[in-house]
Amino acid sequence: MSDIDYARYDRIRPIRWTGDALELLDQRKLPFATEYLTCRNSDEVAAAIHALAVRGAPAIGIAAAWGVVLAAREIDASEPDQAAVQLEPALRRLNAARPTAVNLAWALARMRAALLRATGDWREALEAEARAIETEDLAANRHMGALGAALIPQGSGVLTHCNTGSLATAGFGTALGVIRAGVAQGRIDAVFAGETRPWLQGARLTVWELQQDGIDATLIADAAASHLMKAGKVQWVVVGADRICANGDVANKIGTYQLAIAARHHGVKFMVVAPSSTVDMATASGDLIEIEEREAGELHGVGGTRTVAEGIAAWNPVFDVTPHDLIDAIVTEKGVVERPDEERMRALFG
Amino acid sequence: MSDIDYARYDRIRPIRWTGDALELLDQRKLPFATEYLTCRNSDEVAAAIHALAVRGAPAIGIAAAWGVVLAAREIDASEPDQAAVQLEPALRRLNAARPTAVNLAWALARMRAALLRATGDWREALEAEARAIETEDLAANRHMGALGAALIPQGSGVLTHCNTGSLATAGFGTALGVIRAGVAQGRIDAVFAGETRPWLQGARLTVWELQQDGIDATLIADAAASHLMKAGKVQWVVVGADRICANGDVANKIGTYQLAIAARHHGVKFMVVAPSSTVDMATASGDLIEIEEREAGELHGVGGTRTVAEGIAAWNPVFDVTPHDLIDAIVTEKGVVERPDEERMRALFG
Repeated sequence: MSDIDYARYDRIRPIRWTGDALELLDQRKLPFATEYLTCRNSDEVAAAIHALAVRGAPAIGIAAAWGVVLAAREIDASEPDQAAVQLEPALRRLNAARPTAVNLAWALARMRAALLRATGDWREALEAEARAIETEDLAANRHMGALGAALIPQGSGVLTHCNTGSLATAGFGTALGVIRAGVAQGRIDAVFAGETRPWLQGARLTVWELQQDGIDATLIADAAASHLMKAGKVQWVVVGADRICANGDVANKIGTYQLAIAARHHGVKFMVVAPSSTVDMATASGDLIEIEEREAGELHGVGGTRTVAEGIAAWNPVFDVTPHDLIDAIVTEKGVVERPDEERMRALFG
Repeated sequence: MSDIDYARYDRIRPIRWTGDALELLDQRKLPFATEYLTCRNSDEVAAAIHALAVRGAPAIGIAAAWGVVLAAREIDASEPDQAAVQLEPALRRLNAARPTAVNLAWALARMRAALLRATGDWREALEAEARAIETEDLAANRHMGALGAALIPQGSGVLTHCNTGSLATAGFGTALGVIRAGVAQGRIDAVFAGETRPWLQGARLTVWELQQDGIDATLIADAAASHLMKAGKVQWVVVGADRICANGDVANKIGTYQLAIAARHHGVKFMVVAPSSTVDMATASGDLIEIEEREAGELHGVGGTRTVAEGIAAWNPVFDVTPHDLIDAIVTEKGVVERPDEERMRALFG
């Protein structure tokens, strides 16, 4: 097994800290323009998160952490306790930018804790913590990449869904990190990506992102996945997760569940890749997760093109739940849970 | 069981014969403009078929038949034999407009045969045959509507795919005819339609068409179908067919197979509705059907909006094959084949 040439297979950085500003690769403009949005204060970071210039739970958390570093420069406090009080309004505004993103609250909690335990220069402590959140995310993704790729036999085709790549993280990605590692190691011959209606993250982001690293990916309509599997073109489906329950049930982008059913029907393996911060041992099973439904308008067209008549209703759930018995492996930076169930999940995540 | 009020539930006519011209509801402009394209000669009909102003196998066949009626006015022949020779170039141009549409060749063959057996005014004989093709299609659809609806219990929700409605036929539709009948009879409480990427026939045509008849339909992303089934919102999937094999395997719009797998997984029933002219007893099974793959460009955007970066490959199969063991009922105007297999198909179709 060859090592992975990260200089080749991990080129995209959606978040750049310049020393006095945060630059965010504006995902609203991809794939047609590669423009970084410069945020010079914490409110600009909150606005960028809210406006989806940056997306993907890990990436949002990292951006928010740098937002706290910027907020620290906007106040005048000598002691951490005093700074904590003065920073609270900015922290609240950052947290409110995407209230449902778990990693956002998690990153802000880490920043608060780092501030309160600071002994020297508390501003330097916050900057070090933001950097740690970012570098730990990248390291976790590279570790998951190696763990997940090890499950994929040489000569495999893989199918992914939505965008779980560098764009959604500090770099390398979760499910896309496994795919990058699998390609780098010569295990994966063919990569397919579903469009992922209604937001088309697969079409707009995933295939572009892989293209930047020189990885050929083939786009398919979401509805063509079963036909692809029947044709024998894929051996693994590799997806991310928004929440993983105590029994191994996985909430992820709408369409994931359908891919898992189709995979089982065809004897195709199904892998979920996500950092352990996604594992929620307090939620027993997927039945307990409330699925967010967004406005019908997202199904009324694409970009500026309206495709549907006026007055048409649409049902637009954003996530679905894949039950653990359709999942062959959950890959986290803490290790792999094969054929997940409550007992095997507890063994790794306590 | 109440009768169906066709004046309410069958309002759309995509094809109108005025006595000296053929008017086609221009499906390229739907749902935003309801414009009829007027064809005054057979070449204009061929061009309209080629340009997809009219689509759906039965509708194409009917339009071509009226094209022959127009062609008959462009020649000077007193006897049918003489007319047959003079009409042949026009027939060939009509047939070439969509070479893969089975109903097109079938309708032209019927017109040729009607011409050659004409005893009185052969032009009148051709006009009568075109009218017969059209009225028989409508009658078959209404009959299939009643047969299919009888399988659906009161209080059901249904999911359909692509467009199989009035727009694709002389009127009423095939799968959509069953849904119209089921709604009219109070059996169906909720209708869901998949968008049907890449052409979005579900989003552009099906929900609009049902709206015209006062039937509320709810649009979903194709990838949301399994989540819909798990939520218990649909009891039947009702789809059309492009070809039905001797063993009951069904070729239909890409995505149909995935719906059939998901339906079986959830205990949702799966119905295929198509005229008997779609049944091809000469093809033993779906494995023998070559699936047309269209250009990648259809997945590179929607309408005028490009969504995908330059240089991205796409795999764009237009149809897929649903094996007969995932189908609960095939409904034709000749009768219903439940749990289709070779023996049951042969019993009805010889």
